[in-house]
Amino acid sequence: MLKLFYTPGTCSLASHIALEEAGAGYEVHRVDFSKAEQTKPDYLTINPKGRVPALVTDRGILTETPAILAYIAQSFPKARLAPLDDPFEFARLQSFLSYLCSTVHVAHAHARRAARWADDPAAQEAMKAKVPQNMADCFALIERTMFVGPFVRGDAYSVADPYLFTIAGWLESDGVDPARFPRILDHRNRMAERPAVAKVLAEVQS
Amino acid sequence: MLKLFYTPGTCSLASHIALEEAGAGYEVHRVDFSKAEQTKPDYLTINPKGRVPALVTDRGILTETPAILAYIAQSFPKARLAPLDDPFEFARLQSFLSYLCSTVHVAHAHARRAARWADDPAAQEAMKAKVPQNMADCFALIERTMFVGPFVRGDAYSVADPYLFTIAGWLESDGVDPARFPRILDHRNRMAERPAVAKVLAEVQS
Ligand SMILES: N[C@@H](CCC(=O)N[C@@H](CS)C(=O)NCC(=O)O)C(=O)O
Ligand SMILES: N[C@@H](CCC(=O)N[C@@H](CS)C(=O)NCC(=O)O)C(=O)O
Repeated sequence: MLKLFYTPGTCSLASHIALEEAGAGYEVHRVDFSKAEQTKPDYLTINPKGRVPALVTDRGILTETPAILAYIAQSFPKARLAPLDDPFEFARLQSFLSYLCSTVHVAHAHARRAARWADDPAAQEAMKAKVPQNMADCFALIERTMFVGPFVRGDAYSVADPYLFTIAGWLESDGVDPARFPRILDHRNRMAERPAVAKVLAEVQS
Repeated sequence: MLKLFYTPGTCSLASHIALEEAGAGYEVHRVDFSKAEQTKPDYLTINPKGRVPALVTDRGILTETPAILAYIAQSFPKARLAPLDDPFEFARLQSFLSYLCSTVHVAHAHARRAARWADDPAAQEAMKAKVPQNMADCFALIERTMFVGPFVRGDAYSVADPYLFTIAGWLESDGVDPARFPRILDHRNRMAERPAVAKVLAEVQS
């Protein structure tokens, strides 16, 4: 059975929702950041990077949200969570996942995890100060050039949707008013009403 | 015909080599960073993010290195640049691409592009100062936990190899002695001898 290592409030939510939408059989294991469990030897044998998510499969362990999302879509093709038979459309989906992972998530991480990139506390404060602008720039670009609507790819729901939902959920805490991005906010509201999303949110918040 | 927008010395080298290894028909267009061409309206119609690489296909334009690399592998299956018939192995490959893109490339970018994440020049200097340590940490993890050898995935060459080659080529300029990572350095040397790699390097340096 698949097993997802997750932490509430993190990017692991995207993989968690995707598993639920796929109708996968899976269990979850909570990694407690307040106890720094992600840095302890037990967890480092699961993911030597010391991050969530990690997905344990019977073939081995997978890390990195875009890879896990594409894996779920390919492993549960009946759920139609990605355009699996069209390399160009699949690449467009992957491009979106990669942008969220390498640019938007990274822009966000400069608020809480600035210590990754500079030791000086003043420098960390300077990074934190720029997060609202960088997140707003990213979401302006997403809304203008990437998001088709009603879902990320258009009419077809895909693994891009829980990933966008997850990261868009960080806007307020990153100092950005989501009302500036009406189509993204509408997507976020509609996503929250999906049974799979509501079920996962209840589970991680309990 | 495929058309790659590239800049010498950047991550676009990975996609360029992959096109060559795939035996694809393609042309290239150089984006001149010294003239800030990546920020000009002409280029922003190609890639609104203002970055290279961008791959123009007859279906539309693709951006993001991991997405372009997987697209090349899927579009030229005879070149066997990815384990296309095995979702788990494909996900492991994608996990590696995603790590390079979201963590290693980002660690490197804090040297030259620190202004993305803080306005204060002193903060930018503090970020730059941490680059050698972060790049060394990333490559230690790659060598210890990800790189199988002789190629990234083991005996099978894949699109992960030109991507690793590209980013490993930045070590010296990031203040890291590549001799600290003997298996990565050996990979880099063997890669440079591949005809496809030598051809592309000659092309971009001319
Ligand atoms: N590129 C990775 C990033 C994973 C990541 O940074 N996860 C964060 C939570 S959103 C984490 O585990 N942080 C723990 C730490 O930095 O100690 C992915 O997309 O899965
Ligand atoms: N996540 C993107 C990043 C692309 C990227 O940052 N490219 C750099 C060169 S390595 C660039 O175009 N920089 C131009 C600039 O920042 O103005 C990818 O992997 O393709």
